[in-house]
Amino acid sequence: MMQLKIKILNIDSGGKPFVFLNDKDADELNVTASERVTVKAKKKITAIVNTSTAIEKGFLGVTEEVRKMLLLKQNNTVTVDIAPFPKSLQFIRNKLSGKKLLYSEIHEIVQDLVDGNLNENEISAFVTALHIDKLDLDEATSLSRSMVDTGKTLSIDKKVIIDKHSIGGVPGDKTTLLVVPIISSEGFTIPKTSSRAITSAAGTADRAEILMPVELTTNNMLKILKKSNGCIAWGGAIDLAPADDMFVKIEFSLHIDPLLLPSIMSKKKAVGATHLVVDIPTGRGAKMKTVGEADLLAKDIIELGSRLGIHTHCTLTSGEQPIGNTVGPALEAREALEVLMNQKDVPDLIDKACSIAGSMFELLGKKDGYVLAKKILESGKAEQKMREIIKSQGGNPLILPKDIPIGKHSLVISSEKSGQILWMENRIIVDIARAAGAPKDKGAGIVFNKKTGDPVQTGEVLFTIYAEKAHKLDRVKYILSTQTPLGIGKRSDMLIHKITESPVVERTFVIDR
Amino acid sequence: MMQLKIKILNIDSGGKPFVFLNDKDADELNVTASERVTVKAKKKITAIVNTSTAIEKGFLGVTEEVRKMLLLKQNNTVTVDIAPFPKSLQFIRNKLSGKKLLYSEIHEIVQDLVDGNLNENEISAFVTALHIDKLDLDEATSLSRSMVDTGKTLSIDKKVIIDKHSIGGVPGDKTTLLVVPIISSEGFTIPKTSSRAITSAAGTADRAEILMPVELTTNNMLKILKKSNGCIAWGGAIDLAPADDMFVKIEFSLHIDPLLLPSIMSKKKAVGATHLVVDIPTGRGAKMKTVGEADLLAKDIIELGSRLGIHTHCTLTSGEQPIGNTVGPALEAREALEVLMNQKDVPDLIDKACSIAGSMFELLGKKDGYVLAKKILESGKAEQKMREIIKSQGGNPLILPKDIPIGKHSLVISSEKSGQILWMENRIIVDIARAAGAPKDKGAGIVFNKKTGDPVQTGEVLFTIYAEKAHKLDRVKYILSTQTPLGIGKRSDMLIHKITESPVVERTFVIDR
Repeated sequence: MMQLKIKILNIDSGGKPFVFLNDKDADELNVTASERVTVKAKKKITAIVNTSTAIEKGFLGVTEEVRKMLLLKQNNTVTVDIAPFPKSLQFIRNKLSGKKLLYSEIHEIVQDLVDGNLNENEISAFVTALHIDKLDLDEATSLSRSMVDTGKTLSIDKKVIIDKHSIGGVPGDKTTLLVVPIISSEGFTIPKTSSRAITSAAGTADRAEILMPVELTTNNMLKILKKSNGCIAWGGAIDLAPADDMFVKIEFSLHIDPLLLPSIMSKKKAVGATHLVVDIPTGRGAKMKTVGEADLLAKDIIELGSRLGIHTHCTLTSGEQPIGNTVGPALEAREALEVLMNQKDVPDLIDKACSIAGSMFELLGKKDGYVLAKKILESGKAEQKMREIIKSQGGNPLILPKDIPIGKHSLVISSEKSGQILWMENRIIVDIARAAGAPKDKGAGIVFNKKTGDPVQTGEVLFTIYAEKAHKLDRVKYILSTQTPLGIGKRSDMLIHKITESPVVERTFVIDR
Repeated sequence: MMQLKIKILNIDSGGKPFVFLNDKDADELNVTASERVTVKAKKKITAIVNTSTAIEKGFLGVTEEVRKMLLLKQNNTVTVDIAPFPKSLQFIRNKLSGKKLLYSEIHEIVQDLVDGNLNENEISAFVTALHIDKLDLDEATSLSRSMVDTGKTLSIDKKVIIDKHSIGGVPGDKTTLLVVPIISSEGFTIPKTSSRAITSAAGTADRAEILMPVELTTNNMLKILKKSNGCIAWGGAIDLAPADDMFVKIEFSLHIDPLLLPSIMSKKKAVGATHLVVDIPTGRGAKMKTVGEADLLAKDIIELGSRLGIHTHCTLTSGEQPIGNTVGPALEAREALEVLMNQKDVPDLIDKACSIAGSMFELLGKKDGYVLAKKILESGKAEQKMREIIKSQGGNPLILPKDIPIGKHSLVISSEKSGQILWMENRIIVDIARAAGAPKDKGAGIVFNKKTGDPVQTGEVLFTIYAEKAHKLDRVKYILSTQTPLGIGKRSDMLIHKITESPVVERTFVIDR
């Protein structure tokens, strides 16, 4: 134990409490870098140690996180001691040696994660072990429950709460903007929380934000639901299952997502869902490549739902090309609004929305769900409900498609040959939209004039790229000079590609939750 | 790409280049935390990004590592850009999905590791994957070679270079202090590099440092070898296989060591060893618990040696209790010196040293190695050679056991019953020695009056603990109040322990290389 003087470092450490000790003080405390100390001012916290020769002996460098947690000022004196060994680390080590973890053990890990008591190495090793050794359904259940228990939950005073989720991976998927008003216009409660894009060109929260504020407080959300039955909120603002956000950071960097199921289900459990439809886009370029693979995932999702008390169905939908004709937050919001207003016919988007909304109706006991959903959409009731939700969330209920600003710089890509569109590549489409500025530049994105199966003549426009900043179109041009987002040819063209030397494999990785 | 002004943060980041960007600048560059940027001043380096609201827009916070690499001053302007995606990360991802890695891929990973281009998550995931999926001998070979290629090597002008290594795990193992002079007194070249303790009470470098300086430069080491044939240097000072030190940090925290073999063999290859004996302490409380397990490890070590062009033998030695009667740097150095001077008979230490030195002689073509080693030791030739080495390395060649200072605070533990010592527990012995201050306080440690098999009467002294600082004996007392380092009873006592509730398992983990 020792008394140290505070040195404010004026840096953040990504949400985790970090302190910097002089090497000699660390030796004296018998801690090394990455280990943990307790720091006591008025409160006592556990923080992760960095050792530094640049911190004077007798001082403790603190990041903004620690400064705020303990309300510290320059030269304050604190008591620092070696922290007791976290039990959760022993449980992680057990997982590394192939042991199955019990609920209490997983809860300890998740709690320590949320409290910032685990360092990057430890979290990464845990996630990697879950990925390689697979987590079984018992562990997935324990993880889901622990992630709910360590975050906020929503108490909605309803017997039936319906929700939807997509495992993601298809660009242009603005289905939720249609499904929420369709479902809630029938009087069902749907407390939809959505994420912002991580690897994609737009998350549902990014799309919805074009129409209305999505950073709602829990109280606000409850009020809106009481009034309108439905809402579309950014999940990040209401701190549901915060552990998931920490896991995602690690998964993102490693391109693995063993926590997919607990992540989805914990967030649904946290909002109190009793019924749930999970959409699994399937096919080339989607997260699930084959129907067999998708069916197996669906089986696990349904079983996990049942263990958590959520009656769950899944829909497998075609995920080989963008949904509708637009990609990018503003372009997608505009397209969704046009469809809600019956101003534009976008067959695949409408079919997908009615299939999912229909499944949800059927899960809730209604017959002919698809037909019901389609009727609600065509009758204008969905549009009316959407405007009501927009108003409740503080947006402009009279918004028209033309009010939505789109990037004013554009690049038109025309076909250099005739034939049929044989395929579209989601990964390259996302790369292009992101290079153009999406999702940060909301007006950036792509409008497609052609989709898979369409005939095309030389000189016809294939797609147009929009950007808010002209120089971002240069990055787009560079991508287009080396990769092509769609293939034009004859149906009888057989060769996919030739391999003449060891190929470099670039895999799609999608982790938008 | 953007120009940013330098803000010196005055913190270290553990050897890796870290920079801190304002969130908005990071967005503009399209990088997120843990990703990489290039920073260009006169030179260009790659650094890992932290984002921070506490860094003003337009500034780049740099750690000491980056400041020194680029010779930066406050408010210097640098050019920062998103770094090209490191190929090595794709190779790590491939390993995570169960792919076997080729030499060129492993080399890329190790090079990026050494250059600081991989973040903690990525290194941890790689090490975890090697642990869970196991690395095969091809990958172990590639890792060994890559670790040699990315560090310094020693060019000794000799056809035959012999070396020894122990996989560690037994306290009090001062064997090397006897083996090096025995071997070199016969004219063989033994460029012994050793490590300091990480998890143990003393590393060979810590023990040797009591007798002489061990932080040698490469040139110095070559000179000493020319003169005396043998040396005992701290490996950390000469930068052999620096990748290993980075891997060890991760392995240490996770209690896994998939890189054990590449770690050993790369360091031996780096000093140019042509012949090698690896000691594998075996038994309860050692790293290898059974002879079967140890034999399988030996098989891999010998095969790996053969692939690297090192003729390798292994010795399995009894590792169930401390070697000799002392634990702790100074106490062990004193015991080794007493044995070299034939002042004290320490049968297990002498047997182990002669067995290993004997194996080394036999590997080099001599007959009856054990007898030869014993003769060299008993004749005083080993002592003479050791004094020569001490002198070459800059120590006092006339040093006597009584010149070595031992901690002046002590705690004598006597037996509370009569019987026989049935077992000694290495883990608890190490905990006690470390609590007393070892290895940092060099005079701290334990002297045993009794070892396994010895008869003991009530009131007889079992062992004495020495400390440099009195308060550290309080920590020792606390350990002794809850755990016992040795068991006294009758040979016919059968019960090991009872289990009445879910037991908390504490495993020994040793990672001293």
